[in-house]
Amino acid sequence: MAVYTKVSSEALAAFLTRYDVGHLVSAKGIAEGVENSNYLVETTGSDGRGARFILTLYEKRVELADLPFFLGLTSHLADKGLPVPAPITDKDGTALQRLEGRPACLIEFLPGVSVTDVTPALAKRAGAALAELHLGAADFTGTRPNSLSLAGWEDLAAACAGHLQEIDPSLPALVEDELKWQRSHRPDDIPVGIVHADLFPDNVLVLEGEISGLIDFYFACTDRLAYDLAVTHASWAFDDEGGWRGEDVSTALLDGYRQHRALSEAEEAAFNGLARGAALRFLLTRAYDWINTPPDAMVTRKDPMAFARRLIHYRSA
Amino acid sequence: MAVYTKVSSEALAAFLTRYDVGHLVSAKGIAEGVENSNYLVETTGSDGRGARFILTLYEKRVELADLPFFLGLTSHLADKGLPVPAPITDKDGTALQRLEGRPACLIEFLPGVSVTDVTPALAKRAGAALAELHLGAADFTGTRPNSLSLAGWEDLAAACAGHLQEIDPSLPALVEDELKWQRSHRPDDIPVGIVHADLFPDNVLVLEGEISGLIDFYFACTDRLAYDLAVTHASWAFDDEGGWRGEDVSTALLDGYRQHRALSEAEEAAFNGLARGAALRFLLTRAYDWINTPPDAMVTRKDPMAFARRLIHYRSA
Repeated sequence: MAVYTKVSSEALAAFLTRYDVGHLVSAKGIAEGVENSNYLVETTGSDGRGARFILTLYEKRVELADLPFFLGLTSHLADKGLPVPAPITDKDGTALQRLEGRPACLIEFLPGVSVTDVTPALAKRAGAALAELHLGAADFTGTRPNSLSLAGWEDLAAACAGHLQEIDPSLPALVEDELKWQRSHRPDDIPVGIVHADLFPDNVLVLEGEISGLIDFYFACTDRLAYDLAVTHASWAFDDEGGWRGEDVSTALLDGYRQHRALSEAEEAAFNGLARGAALRFLLTRAYDWINTPPDAMVTRKDPMAFARRLIHYRSA
Repeated sequence: MAVYTKVSSEALAAFLTRYDVGHLVSAKGIAEGVENSNYLVETTGSDGRGARFILTLYEKRVELADLPFFLGLTSHLADKGLPVPAPITDKDGTALQRLEGRPACLIEFLPGVSVTDVTPALAKRAGAALAELHLGAADFTGTRPNSLSLAGWEDLAAACAGHLQEIDPSLPALVEDELKWQRSHRPDDIPVGIVHADLFPDNVLVLEGEISGLIDFYFACTDRLAYDLAVTHASWAFDDEGGWRGEDVSTALLDGYRQHRALSEAEEAAFNGLARGAALRFLLTRAYDWINTPPDAMVTRKDPMAFARRLIHYRSA
């Protein structure tokens, strides 16, 4: 939620000459993207009628080696007609550049506003879009291990050890018990593919009731497809505090997905355990950030307990 | 440099129905405006051809009572054809609204990028634009005392007492000595009017070499017109570290101003003292922020010494 690297007007104007996008008209740093610097850039456009782009500068927490995967994937999905922001290539066909000493990419601007009011109708469309994303990525050849799967959860839990009780006295036992359960319940008989892994409502753009954008692919990786649906369920079916939004949103999301990609019996059987894992993953990353962010820092700490409540919901389901 | 108040898509869409601007297309929180929350909002436009606006939500540090002055002034200047972002009025003719519990205003979006590479040509245009601003505001009836004039400097110095030496051992004596000089050298025989009071290069937008915007009027007030030129000089004629950019930039800025509004003999005579005051003003506000911002906070502290160097430059001139 910040602009870490400042781009001078002159450097940006020079950078844009690599592309067939016309001249720089305006650039505003935008408060989007947890770990990168983003600018909304306006140019005169290749046809003089104006064009807009997102310029992303990748900050230190993004692995340079992962960028070709992210850019290749979004390019692949956009080529298939999915509402995914495509990397723009320069006149030489190159997408990944350097600017102000950082890896940088000019990216398609998609209209629409982030979902803030989750309705069954939008949840159904989100489920459908996730299924189409899975199908569209099926022939993408890149792979990226999920560093936030079971081994990552174990590492995070170890890093938080001794501090979880500062967040809530119930947390150490909940995390330990759930990790133990997850270790012995990994479903290895279900389809694996490319997953978004972070399709929260704020990563879905909507324009006039239709989904106009699926954004923020920087957690995308190779994992169980049904786990991605579980992550999406854990983010859409509960409110910001972790309260259940209602059966109608939950059912609409799952139905929307199933109408475009049928879940196998094994996936249906594994779903609740995967949702428990999804809740644990966000509980642990939030707990880690909570413990390692000073309370007076100028960033909003997201409450880990909102995902503890989801985990408890799934465990009792 | 942050978005403090989050505006939901639904609240924004409903807010926009007050205006004749079409429907919401996109909204991005922008990292602009030190003390307010700003969004770059795109709509379908009243004619369906698209339109862009800045939506500002005024945060606690802005005095609600000052908003009619700021909005009245920018509206007045925009009406005169100056490149100043005009407040947009709703269908009832009202500019100042409330949104998400905050005072809010939809404001004209101006193209252009902030000046980052100061050249004599741009400095001349900035001087001319400042003179036109002074002339254009001459018949504006609002007034606002400058809370960051001598009395304000005294308050800031008192608030920093005992801590200035933590920034630099030379600062306490420099500030004390300059305050003493300023107290006995207030020029009371020069024209007073509406001043911008913060026309740093980053508050000037440029498009294809011409000034396309003068922005951020939230320090505008009633003060000596030549003091505004001194503030502009203190910000344009030095680099970020407080090093002198060169006589050519300085001369171009002053000439640009004088070509549109002649300085009286008294103003010419007072200028160096006013520039010392301008350097002291930013030295003190930066020192206050420096002392009161934890070093590990997620905001960039601006170096007070960059203005101590300017002050020393003017004192030795």
